Amino acid sequence: MAKKNAFYAQSGGVTAVINASACGVIETARKHKDKIGKIYAGRNGILGALTEDLIDTGKESDSAIAALRSTPAGAFGSCRYKLKSLETSRREYERLIEVFKAHNIGTFFYNGGGDSADTCFKISQLAQSLGYPIQAIHVPKTVDNDLPITDCCPGFGSVAKYVAVSTLEASFDVRSMSSTSTKIFVLEVMGRHAGWIAAAGGLLVDHNIPVVILFPEVVFDQKKFLERVSAKVKQHGYCTVVVSEGCHHADGRYLAEQGTRDAFGHAQLGGAAPVVAGMIKDALGVKIHWAVADYLQRSARHIASKTDVKQAYELGRAAVNLALKGHNAVMPTIERISDVPYKYRIGVADLKDVANVEKFMPKNFISADGFGITEKCKRYLTPLIQGEDYPRYVGGLPDYVTLKNVAVAKKLKPFKIQSA
Amino acid sequence: MAKKNAFYAQSGGVTAVINASACGVIETARKHKDKIGKIYAGRNGILGALTEDLIDTGKESDSAIAALRSTPAGAFGSCRYKLKSLETSRREYERLIEVFKAHNIGTFFYNGGGDSADTCFKISQLAQSLGYPIQAIHVPKTVDNDLPITDCCPGFGSVAKYVAVSTLEASFDVRSMSSTSTKIFVLEVMGRHAGWIAAAGGLLVDHNIPVVILFPEVVFDQKKFLERVSAKVKQHGYCTVVVSEGCHHADGRYLAEQGTRDAFGHAQLGGAAPVVAGMIKDALGVKIHWAVADYLQRSARHIASKTDVKQAYELGRAAVNLALKGHNAVMPTIERISDVPYKYRIGVADLKDVANVEKFMPKNFISADGFGITEKCKRYLTPLIQGEDYPRYVGGLPDYVTLKNVAVAKKLKPFKIQSA
Repeated sequence: MAKKNAFYAQSGGVTAVINASACGVIETARKHKDKIGKIYAGRNGILGALTEDLIDTGKESDSAIAALRSTPAGAFGSCRYKLKSLETSRREYERLIEVFKAHNIGTFFYNGGGDSADTCFKISQLAQSLGYPIQAIHVPKTVDNDLPITDCCPGFGSVAKYVAVSTLEASFDVRSMSSTSTKIFVLEVMGRHAGWIAAAGGLLVDHNIPVVILFPEVVFDQKKFLERVSAKVKQHGYCTVVVSEGCHHADGRYLAEQGTRDAFGHAQLGGAAPVVAGMIKDALGVKIHWAVADYLQRSARHIASKTDVKQAYELGRAAVNLALKGHNAVMPTIERISDVPYKYRIGVADLKDVANVEKFMPKNFISADGFGITEKCKRYLTPLIQGEDYPRYVGGLPDYVTLKNVAVAKKLKPFKIQSA
Repeated sequence: MAKKNAFYAQSGGVTAVINASACGVIETARKHKDKIGKIYAGRNGILGALTEDLIDTGKESDSAIAALRSTPAGAFGSCRYKLKSLETSRREYERLIEVFKAHNIGTFFYNGGGDSADTCFKISQLAQSLGYPIQAIHVPKTVDNDLPITDCCPGFGSVAKYVAVSTLEASFDVRSMSSTSTKIFVLEVMGRHAGWIAAAGGLLVDHNIPVVILFPEVVFDQKKFLERVSAKVKQHGYCTVVVSEGCHHADGRYLAEQGTRDAFGHAQLGGAAPVVAGMIKDALGVKIHWAVADYLQRSARHIASKTDVKQAYELGRAAVNLALKGHNAVMPTIERISDVPYKYRIGVADLKDVANVEKFMPKNFISADGFGITEKCKRYLTPLIQGEDYPRYVGGLPDYVTLKNVAVAKKLKPFKIQSA
């Protein structure tokens, strides 16, 4: 078989370690020059493939590629662009194949979450039927930790570590202030449907710090919540609340959607934390501080989990090795062998089993009262935040790399994407 | 002169390094057992002195005291309780002297900002006039960096590092997403009156990242601001905004005070970031993300500046040395000798010159357009964020110390404080 090129793209919300997977893919592919030709990347994810805006990663030095391992966010640009069904988006799937064909691309590495696993699977199917076979390999990535089969997803361990560390630090702060000032600190974290990130706030359970967690998996019960917070403040003098952005009422409305308007009647961009803070203030009349971590949590490479960085890299490497072994429509996974000591191996899942399945927190990971995590959850989470993997600093700031991202000459006519 | 005891208290909003100053005070005092007896701490700051709720730091091991150096927040508890003038609060000042007398306390180390410098000064004055002389030494602490005379304040360098690192990381994130999704990221930071913290976002100036800063020192001009953000998005495809909580309109109203109400008419707890985000969204119609760092920024010991930790410790040590040399009503300071290489020495300021003076950003630290920092400001800030001083981690979390805080037996009648 003649040597073909490879294509790599980043998809969806970026993480602190998605570039570590890119590093794993590119460094491993570079070691197999006999079997893999050029390694292209999509500028801004799959959009780069659709618009034939390819990046030649061969123009990047080995040290620049190595630096990806400790650089957050998406070095080639990511995108939020979901290809729909083969019927609806057929023109776009066909365009992808055309671009791959024009650039002699034989392997498609797609680094993303559930949606991109689905896209990856469909590309592989269509390519077969169009007679231009593509090996489509999905590299898992999502801070939401909601992909099935794999024990965890790269990106999650680092955001979990960020949330656990931040909750610990802010709790020390509010504890110091509570005698005369702030008694409650509310931290809003990501997780629209799954409460994995919020659960990380529960890792402080052995530090005798009162933490109340609001999960998207548990319907919000205002009365019960306020009673719980009030009891914690009575007992400890203070309390920390970790609220998931996806926390919602029984009718499905997010807490953040309070119909909040400013003095001019403009709708305000939501936030669950200020809503929860306002609620507590109205009910308990105590001073409250709140924070919304937003992008800070998922880009916090400075406090990434070493375990997470390692797994992100390993899954990138495994993706290339799967391709070299002839696999198609698969995703390398983390298979946990034991909690203590933490042991895992790299497994493989068929994309047909991954696409469009969302993994929520199991019931037995959430404590009976709905406001905390169980011992079982703690055993699951603890290994994932182990170890620190500090970036190099120059002049007081992390020495994150910005690649040159040199474009590959186009060979096809322009393509108008449906919407972006 | 007979050996007397010492008293140490933490005041106001805590920081990532105030305990490093406590460590400097206690470790240094412990080395002078011939001159300093017991070292007491106030439980919850000055309230502990007023209510005779003293902590015997002698009950803490050397290793627990050493661990203070890398533990954020106030290990003995802080408080927001401002003693007023000697006339208004005379009963309380006298009570302090009574408690000091009852426990044979000869030195008062007060670790705080402008208000506590004022209190410290008054105690020293009153003690003289009541014939029970107290050496009152102030140890500077404030994330706001607004104390006069000293070149910088412990606590500031670490929050500046946190803000600079977070702005860099989140900017990498929004840059990755900007082609199809979020184009602007807004980060709200502390600083009610002085823009030192927001200025730290400008340290990315050499990273080719578009950052627009909103200072409390510059009256908010919505039109000019939106034009500036729009221009940055046109040029770079994305933009990061760092907004100080103290940013305000010409009439003095904070941006956060938008009269925001929820659907039930409840006032919402403010936040400048969501207001700025809403404003940009209305004007430019692009997708925006926002974060409010709140306590996270000042408790982030995990990313503390090594320079800041060192100076916090050194100023605690210097306070004890000043006491041993017989000084009274003074505060050790940082005197900068040079920017590059960064050199400084420990100086000393009279408290009468420190109390009630607030240091704002000099005009020549803010760029002509009002949205950035000057080269001069960068030269000032850069040394303060240098170096990392990582805490020890156990089980994936920082190993922060919680002291035993054993109470000293009371000798006086209870005292009712005016208000807390």
